[in-house]
Amino acid sequence: MNKKSEVHQLIYLFSKLPGLGQRSARRIVLHLLQDKDVRLKGLIDSLSYAESKITKCIICSNIDSTEICNVCSSVNRDHSIIAIVETVAELWAIERSGIFTGRYHVLGTTLSAASNQNPAMLRLPELLDRCKNNQVQELIIATNATLDGQTTAYFITEYFKEHPIKISRLASGIPIGGELDYLDEGTLAASISLRQPFI
Amino acid sequence: MNKKSEVHQLIYLFSKLPGLGQRSARRIVLHLLQDKDVRLKGLIDSLSYAESKITKCIICSNIDSTEICNVCSSVNRDHSIIAIVETVAELWAIERSGIFTGRYHVLGTTLSAASNQNPAMLRLPELLDRCKNNQVQELIIATNATLDGQTTAYFITEYFKEHPIKISRLASGIPIGGELDYLDEGTLAASISLRQPFI
Repeated sequence: MNKKSEVHQLIYLFSKLPGLGQRSARRIVLHLLQDKDVRLKGLIDSLSYAESKITKCIICSNIDSTEICNVCSSVNRDHSIIAIVETVAELWAIERSGIFTGRYHVLGTTLSAASNQNPAMLRLPELLDRCKNNQVQELIIATNATLDGQTTAYFITEYFKEHPIKISRLASGIPIGGELDYLDEGTLAASISLRQPFI
Repeated sequence: MNKKSEVHQLIYLFSKLPGLGQRSARRIVLHLLQDKDVRLKGLIDSLSYAESKITKCIICSNIDSTEICNVCSSVNRDHSIIAIVETVAELWAIERSGIFTGRYHVLGTTLSAASNQNPAMLRLPELLDRCKNNQVQELIIATNATLDGQTTAYFITEYFKEHPIKISRLASGIPIGGELDYLDEGTLAASISLRQPFI
């Protein structure tokens, strides 16, 4: 086991995936090698297919196997509202909630006070064109409630200030099922100052 | 997201790997798709290489890219001692300890009191031949300290009873760094009845 074998190279690659370490990578590689013809072959086929087919949607930057993703091409979705999300992970999270029927703009990155990122990467002029061409009424800024997410949200509101589009953001407050005693002070303070009418 | 897309098929495959679930599988797939040319391509290449090259050692059933694994083919290892392990995972664990210089016999399975497994799967006649042909002096039974592992260990000792080979097993006792208060009673009882001379 001294030489860097093929198996170890594979374990190394798996151990670099998010959430995995040496031990979990070893378990996965052994699991795959124990049934090469089904498990390993199936994974290779699926990865290869993804590599050749999956592409970024030219409208919203979602990922799908078509040039225009299934959200943008759906006739059942509301054209008048766009949610701005940081990455495809947040788009998927909102889709899982099942309540949003509009479309998306995936930023792909956030602006950060610390590092020097280029605001052009957010593709806001393209988003503005899209708003004008499709009579978009509202943009929901759905960036994460982190420092970078909020910096980015502020930048976006500034950019759209002079255009007649309603800008909203996700509600801040207590998570459903949350216990006050376990919440951080920031969330609790926000939930008090942003309190909503009891209906 | 209603249709079962290629991305979801990939997430499904990852979520079935040991230690992974839906959420971790989603993170991994997004991570791979975010840098297709390097991450995804690299993983596909490494998996494909493993699929075509990795094979079971014809002597000990370890996995390697050669017909005889690097442990069995090494001239620096002790021919006279063989550790019997359940799977390649345990072989790797012993190799990481760095203290064992002998060779292995990977059972690939265990006998179980509950299910009806075939003892022939343990390949003990092949192991006996190997012992005779290589003047093996000692077999260390290194099965797991589980019910099935111990059932298997007992079966192996019975099989080798009439042959002049020393049979040993891994020491039972307190793990290094273990605190007595947190140990199960079985381990504590074993560590008392199997107490070793203080040196």
